[in-house]
Amino acid sequence: MSTARPGNRAAHALRPVRLTRQYTRHAEGSVLVEFGHTKVLCTASVEDRVPPHKKGSGEGWVTAEYGMLPRATHTRSSREAAKGKQTGRTQEIQRLIGRSMRCVFDLAALGEHTISLDCDVLQADGGTRTAAITGAFVAAHDAVSWMLAQGRISASPIRDFVAAVSVGIVDGQPRLDLDYSEDSACDTDMNVVMTGSGGFVEVQGTAEGAAFSRAEMDRLLALAEQGIRDLVAAQREVLGVSA
Amino acid sequence: MSTARPGNRAAHALRPVRLTRQYTRHAEGSVLVEFGHTKVLCTASVEDRVPPHKKGSGEGWVTAEYGMLPRATHTRSSREAAKGKQTGRTQEIQRLIGRSMRCVFDLAALGEHTISLDCDVLQADGGTRTAAITGAFVAAHDAVSWMLAQGRISASPIRDFVAAVSVGIVDGQPRLDLDYSEDSACDTDMNVVMTGSGGFVEVQGTAEGAAFSRAEMDRLLALAEQGIRDLVAAQREVLGVSA
Amino acid sequence: MSTARPGNRAAHALRPVRLTRQYTRHAEGSVLVEFGHTKVLCTASVEDRVPPHKKGSGEGWVTAEYGMLPRATHTRSSREAAKGKQTGRTQEIQRLIGRSMRCVFDLAALGEHTISLDCDVLQADGGTRTAAITGAFVAAHDAVSWMLAQGRISASPIRDFVAAVSVGIVDGQPRLDLDYSEDSACDTDMNVVMTGSGGFVEVQGTAEGAAFSRAEMDRLLALAEQGIRDLVAAQREVLGVSA
Amino acid sequence: MSTARPGNRAAHALRPVRLTRQYTRHAEGSVLVEFGHTKVLCTASVEDRVPPHKKGSGEGWVTAEYGMLPRATHTRSSREAAKGKQTGRTQEIQRLIGRSMRCVFDLAALGEHTISLDCDVLQADGGTRTAAITGAFVAAHDAVSWMLAQGRISASPIRDFVAAVSVGIVDGQPRLDLDYSEDSACDTDMNVVMTGSGGFVEVQGTAEGAAFSRAEMDRLLALAEQGIRDLVAAQREVLGVSA
Amino acid sequence: MSTARPGNRAAHALRPVRLTRQYTRHAEGSVLVEFGHTKVLCTASVEDRVPPHKKGSGEGWVTAEYGMLPRATHTRSSREAAKGKQTGRTQEIQRLIGRSMRCVFDLAALGEHTISLDCDVLQADGGTRTAAITGAFVAAHDAVSWMLAQGRISASPIRDFVAAVSVGIVDGQPRLDLDYSEDSACDTDMNVVMTGSGGFVEVQGTAEGAAFSRAEMDRLLALAEQGIRDLVAAQREVLGVSA
Amino acid sequence: MSTARPGNRAAHALRPVRLTRQYTRHAEGSVLVEFGHTKVLCTASVEDRVPPHKKGSGEGWVTAEYGMLPRATHTRSSREAAKGKQTGRTQEIQRLIGRSMRCVFDLAALGEHTISLDCDVLQADGGTRTAAITGAFVAAHDAVSWMLAQGRISASPIRDFVAAVSVGIVDGQPRLDLDYSEDSACDTDMNVVMTGSGGFVEVQGTAEGAAFSRAEMDRLLALAEQGIRDLVAAQREVLGVSA
Repeated sequence: MSTARPGNRAAHALRPVRLTRQYTRHAEGSVLVEFGHTKVLCTASVEDRVPPHKKGSGEGWVTAEYGMLPRATHTRSSREAAKGKQTGRTQEIQRLIGRSMRCVFDLAALGEHTISLDCDVLQADGGTRTAAITGAFVAAHDAVSWMLAQGRISASPIRDFVAAVSVGIVDGQPRLDLDYSEDSACDTDMNVVMTGSGGFVEVQGTAEGAAFSRAEMDRLLALAEQGIRDLVAAQREVLGVSA
Repeated sequence: MSTARPGNRAAHALRPVRLTRQYTRHAEGSVLVEFGHTKVLCTASVEDRVPPHKKGSGEGWVTAEYGMLPRATHTRSSREAAKGKQTGRTQEIQRLIGRSMRCVFDLAALGEHTISLDCDVLQADGGTRTAAITGAFVAAHDAVSWMLAQGRISASPIRDFVAAVSVGIVDGQPRLDLDYSEDSACDTDMNVVMTGSGGFVEVQGTAEGAAFSRAEMDRLLALAEQGIRDLVAAQREVLGVSA
Repeated sequence: MSTARPGNRAAHALRPVRLTRQYTRHAEGSVLVEFGHTKVLCTASVEDRVPPHKKGSGEGWVTAEYGMLPRATHTRSSREAAKGKQTGRTQEIQRLIGRSMRCVFDLAALGEHTISLDCDVLQADGGTRTAAITGAFVAAHDAVSWMLAQGRISASPIRDFVAAVSVGIVDGQPRLDLDYSEDSACDTDMNVVMTGSGGFVEVQGTAEGAAFSRAEMDRLLALAEQGIRDLVAAQREVLGVSA
Repeated sequence: MSTARPGNRAAHALRPVRLTRQYTRHAEGSVLVEFGHTKVLCTASVEDRVPPHKKGSGEGWVTAEYGMLPRATHTRSSREAAKGKQTGRTQEIQRLIGRSMRCVFDLAALGEHTISLDCDVLQADGGTRTAAITGAFVAAHDAVSWMLAQGRISASPIRDFVAAVSVGIVDGQPRLDLDYSEDSACDTDMNVVMTGSGGFVEVQGTAEGAAFSRAEMDRLLALAEQGIRDLVAAQREVLGVSA
Repeated sequence: MSTARPGNRAAHALRPVRLTRQYTRHAEGSVLVEFGHTKVLCTASVEDRVPPHKKGSGEGWVTAEYGMLPRATHTRSSREAAKGKQTGRTQEIQRLIGRSMRCVFDLAALGEHTISLDCDVLQADGGTRTAAITGAFVAAHDAVSWMLAQGRISASPIRDFVAAVSVGIVDGQPRLDLDYSEDSACDTDMNVVMTGSGGFVEVQGTAEGAAFSRAEMDRLLALAEQGIRDLVAAQREVLGVSA
Repeated sequence: MSTARPGNRAAHALRPVRLTRQYTRHAEGSVLVEFGHTKVLCTASVEDRVPPHKKGSGEGWVTAEYGMLPRATHTRSSREAAKGKQTGRTQEIQRLIGRSMRCVFDLAALGEHTISLDCDVLQADGGTRTAAITGAFVAAHDAVSWMLAQGRISASPIRDFVAAVSVGIVDGQPRLDLDYSEDSACDTDMNVVMTGSGGFVEVQGTAEGAAFSRAEMDRLLALAEQGIRDLVAAQREVLGVSA
């Protein structure tokens, strides 16, 4: 039998989601995304150059970096800049965010510009990578609006929305949007990235203890699909973009 | 309409799989795994110590490192040791191999020993990480047999088999075990790790171009399930272990 | 003749200063400090161990790390964790913050505990190091209150307040608390760290173009003394500590 | 009551200062500077290229690097090249030397050349950074003479002399040019860099224990002013340049 | 009195030498070289660019990198890519291989191409560097044949053969081609690199314990000369090149 | 026909050799060694601990590090500490110095102490590694005398003298102790390390262009033997030790 969720949240309910645009002044897009107590600052920076593999291609690039402030977590973790290298976890997450963004971008329509998304976790309570993807899309959207307003591009290269959520099985119960305490206790953990039109961009499921069955996977995917519909609705609302 | 596969392979067919035990002399387990032209040398090393987070716990640890010889690939890539750092891709793969192995190990039954799996790609033609997992399991099994023979442990800590395969959609057709040419051309790429008893350990699906649908995902998972049954059969055969 | 300051600020006026305690949840002290548009998140973390040079001494340690989010600035700067090393500027600033804090701490009264101050710039508009020192003190004070409440120490090791401000000569005019535009244009730049009781902790003056005279230095120091009185008053108020 | 200084030196007296030009053969300027037992080899190298931020500007660059031989000190310290990184202290000092030199250079008159000053401490006994600045200026002056003789520039870009000295309060007494034993024992330590015409280039005062008062600071600055007059006189003499 | 060699090998006998061409598919030259149980995979990669010091010179470059799989040895050694740096031993060996190859290459006849030799030890039992040189020459020869066939060069830049062998004094007896057990026990160890026409390219002799005499050196050199004649014969045979 | 040597030196003549003891104050041994214009500062530091592989063995360790000041050379080379890594050349040389010293040390008689030899090149004109070995031995000898005087050891662990010299073939003529101009022009370069009693410790011969013959090697070795006799005589004289 499953235990109650923190705050008596329903198994299929997201934590309160907040997307605050223009959180900082300098970036072309700057969004604070909150999934409950998880807070990630996502900035989008536009640069008029592309990495070597895109030079002369007429295409642009969208990339991401991820970081966590040392005391975003319950106990202090060491600063990656001081240690002189990023952990495997950090690299894995920033590669995931980058791929997720590129999946909804028409790089040819972007022209030879780079949009860099910096996702820095100010406070962590589970789901930092899914919050980062959800917030980074809004920041990228704002950066694109700035490019259009500046006349740097004439049409938006964004083809669809994209958002992400975690799902997992805790005490035998499939749950949406795990917080840190649930994430630590779960048997199976899955991060799902989907587009606004309902296509899958990334599915990363991991058995933490025992392997999981196909039936469990199906239930988790259904839960994720519903959660992402809600997240995309929140993105649309904050961007003032109708369906 | 889909094009023929290289070598006219059927969509649901694995490439020829070969597992050669005792490929090198010094390691407690040493397996050359071949998925077609992909060749990975997997060695298992037993050490009588555990990493700090396991010290005094009575439990052991299973970990993995992954590397690619500079000219395992079509064009030479730079040597990670010379550059002074592992790429994000390398770290992602070695974390995946480590988690996959630990999922079928009873770390308490292993006692305070570490099994290190080194997976080094001698020749790459797609699917190096799935071949590595499939071969690393056999090497780990040999290392456990050596520990039992040496009296270092009294019962096997291995609870199940584990193997991995890639699946993807190429030219609209779901295919099993992509080679390099297919992997470069595919729309959706999925790596699936499963146990011998049919549970999922890891599912990592990525849309390379357009997002993929739930129906496509279901077809890919079915293909993977069948492929892994075949791989586990090959592991059983080479290890001389009946079902 | 000197030009007007941004926002018609008086030469001897600080920018609006805001100190927000408990800005994040996990740290023992967490303060967002704002000097105008400069925003620095300062967290204080308490650990029950000391660095090697203090082991067995009965004394504690207070240290600081400093970082800047890549897009805290007008144009994106590269992420130190990704480059694999901290710049000389970063190291210089974090050493300054650490020394400034230790100057008002009785390390023997702290016992063998470490307080780590992480100062991360969310938005930069000049004066990030002086804002960081001013905010870090409040975070450290909160961490000490937490230690007292927890019974980890029986008396406060804090002997005095400490705050910092920049002063400089712009267009021939001595000015307090330079913003980014003034900092870029100034002839002489000085960062001053002082205690609540009016003693100097650090004075770092640099001629950017022409050398500066003793008379100019005297005027700058007087301006700094007054600015720090105001900052310490703000610290007292937010901490609810009377003079 | 203050104790006597080592060697019964007067509080306002420099240690014996020696500047030996052409100490090594290859560099365009090469000076061994000695402040008592502190010995620093300063070489100036001229290169016909500038760093990226000066390319095409018509201006040159003056920069510095600092190092300490592992056994320059009482006990051996580890070699930075072997550890693979420079300490924060090293970076802070080399940035200080560079800024000090640039303050007396007309970079436009230097043209697109770089002068690199390498300051390597052969023997340390306090005041290595101030000796380095004082010696580096003489080496830079020799390099400029070489450039003039070679016809690489037609007029000297050097606008003024520059030298540096430390001052501090030991046992309540302000003292000039601290040696290692005094530096370790002092309450307040200040490094002052000034031009030949008496302007301040850098002032870096640090309270080691208790904060210092404005009156103490004034006395230290006066002591430094006098010491630097003597150092500039020594530079003039060795360079054979009249006032 | 000297003990018998492992496998009763004669003092002047090489271990069984095997050179397997086309061991992997992608490289322009790919040779597995075996000296008894020592197995090194040598690949030669051709690139149409040269390092900076050769740019515009009309000359090419030949270089080498060396690595050892973590479990090539009796006990697992740590992975250089994971540690983030190559050991001094690795760098010394790869510099030796590169110099040895360049000694028989006419870099002008190579044109502005680079041949990179990657020598990766799959299994180590003494003599890995001498095996690597012997195998790398064959791989380089294959790469040159490929360049000729492709029309990238019109005449071979290879002027002579080159091979290498170790010699040493074990229990007072000079021996050829030491295996690991002999190498660990020997008093004097010498690696000799010679051309097919009998000239010396490199001689590196090291006293492990007591210094060695001129007479001992002479006996070791004679042994090496004979061993290298045999190795060059093996190279000729596998390449199908008559004397 | 061979050209005259710089300064009309005879083919078998060393450059003027000078060994200056107590060159710096802090180290237990400190020697400036000069071979003509090549100047290397060699310090010996005694520490009361040994590296991990010697802990508890009752034996000591002798090790070396080598560095070159950036402007020791004709053109400035970059600072290894700033680049964050030592070159392969540096590592090769410091390993050679360490092995050479250990060859004449009885590590058991040294007890669990470490002697670290730091060899820093102040001015380079060819032969820096051979000068370093020759000077490091004198510094090590002084450190041993200090240990004896301090009562840290009761008998000297030094079993023999050790010195080194380069030889080479320039314009067809074998020459002793090459300077930089000869070293750059030579066909064959050999570094020889020998003991005072005439045994070989290291022989490292390299063909720079064409391979060298056995006859050439014999002439070079004879030249080196004679040069080292002269160097050991110089060491004896400066140390005041009779034959």
